Amino acid sequence: MKIDQIKKLHQKKYRQEFGCCLVEGEHLVLELENAAKHNPKLAAATLYVTSDYADWSSPFEKVEVSAKQMASMSDTKTPQGILAVVPMDAIAPTNHEQLTAIYLHEIQDPGNLGTILRTLAWFGGFRLLLSAGSVDPFNPKVIRSSMGALFHVPMELDVDITTLPERFNAIGCLDMEGASLSAPEFKACDCYIFGNEARGVPREYLDSLNAKAFTIPGVGLIESLNLATAVNISVYERQR
Amino acid sequence: MKIDQIKKLHQKKYRQEFGCCLVEGEHLVLELENAAKHNPKLAAATLYVTSDYADWSSPFEKVEVSAKQMASMSDTKTPQGILAVVPMDAIAPTNHEQLTAIYLHEIQDPGNLGTILRTLAWFGGFRLLLSAGSVDPFNPKVIRSSMGALFHVPMELDVDITTLPERFNAIGCLDMEGASLSAPEFKACDCYIFGNEARGVPREYLDSLNAKAFTIPGVGLIESLNLATAVNISVYERQR
Repeated sequence: MKIDQIKKLHQKKYRQEFGCCLVEGEHLVLELENAAKHNPKLAAATLYVTSDYADWSSPFEKVEVSAKQMASMSDTKTPQGILAVVPMDAIAPTNHEQLTAIYLHEIQDPGNLGTILRTLAWFGGFRLLLSAGSVDPFNPKVIRSSMGALFHVPMELDVDITTLPERFNAIGCLDMEGASLSAPEFKACDCYIFGNEARGVPREYLDSLNAKAFTIPGVGLIESLNLATAVNISVYERQR
Repeated sequence: MKIDQIKKLHQKKYRQEFGCCLVEGEHLVLELENAAKHNPKLAAATLYVTSDYADWSSPFEKVEVSAKQMASMSDTKTPQGILAVVPMDAIAPTNHEQLTAIYLHEIQDPGNLGTILRTLAWFGGFRLLLSAGSVDPFNPKVIRSSMGALFHVPMELDVDITTLPERFNAIGCLDMEGASLSAPEFKACDCYIFGNEARGVPREYLDSLNAKAFTIPGVGLIESLNLATAVNISVYERQR
């Protein structure tokens, strides 16, 4: 891939056009190389390095570039001198129908999505479904805040919420009112729906989804938990 | 307070000199006004508004400023036209010795601290202890990401970790190895220690603290959970 194409991968439009995303920095590249041990499709990644990383041994094809070229490709003010271009369709592990699904409806914050991916990878046994209109999981900010967890979590994008009832046996949703998270029915669901940071769960669909509402009991001093916190606590409770 | 002093409150140095911090935007000011109903010390806050908010009724003294003055005071690119200057020693509710303590050692990320404050306010029954060298909780980014939860959580700053054993009966710490979080001993602690985002718990102190280690069991695909996620799950488990 050409240098001036790579720098365009910071924009979703070009990630979709070229089918690739950027993985920047030593730590994330190491995570990518580790993930490649279990996911042969990742061998299609290409590494771009400055002379600082000329000796870096990698399973990926390696291209040396100048510091100036690296700066033009990089998302950060002080580039580390190492980045990988990765085909997006190679990144997520194969989806398994038996994994518990976490469905996020129009999640917006890259840091929230990155943190959630880290939690799903930590616990294992989960897959992520994202609605249309969600933040792009291949956004460099998401990849960075996921600390590489993105390479370990099966994902489906642009999932239509109305298709969930035909795919899952029991749908739960997190809401301001509902049964306690520690109720035994909570663990019986195979898909959990979480709403957007500002608007919460999409009420217009809940009836037709036949979703059971659960809540994380609080003392009422503040309006809501952070979205990622609500997801992370739910995931913890589900596997507890 | 003068306009050119207020704009300096974005810097910790001047917050300490003037003893005040900034609370920006309609949502946070509303949260502050709500908190003032239970915390009379907050009546010492001063509100600065542009003509857009001239009719805003508030328990606080109100000063009208020009849009240009507001822009010079504000932390955001598009100021909402309303902010409050609040004495920092009025903000946190009175500390209660019987509340469970969450001790954060050199936490760095403002978003992590804000999210943790939100979680502590949500569940209630907790207080926050921060070590020296932690991010300033009166940093505008922390206040913003706490969504006002800062006004509801008792806090102590610059707490020396070596003083914890004389103050608490049973100290727990979250670490990569330890008993499971769901072990009954976990709930028996009255103080929980969490380490810095990159370095984890401060091992050099752990022996003398006689801290019991706990872990959030994972499948080992990634190195760690996000710090705020580890705190939030622990807080959930503690009050479960």
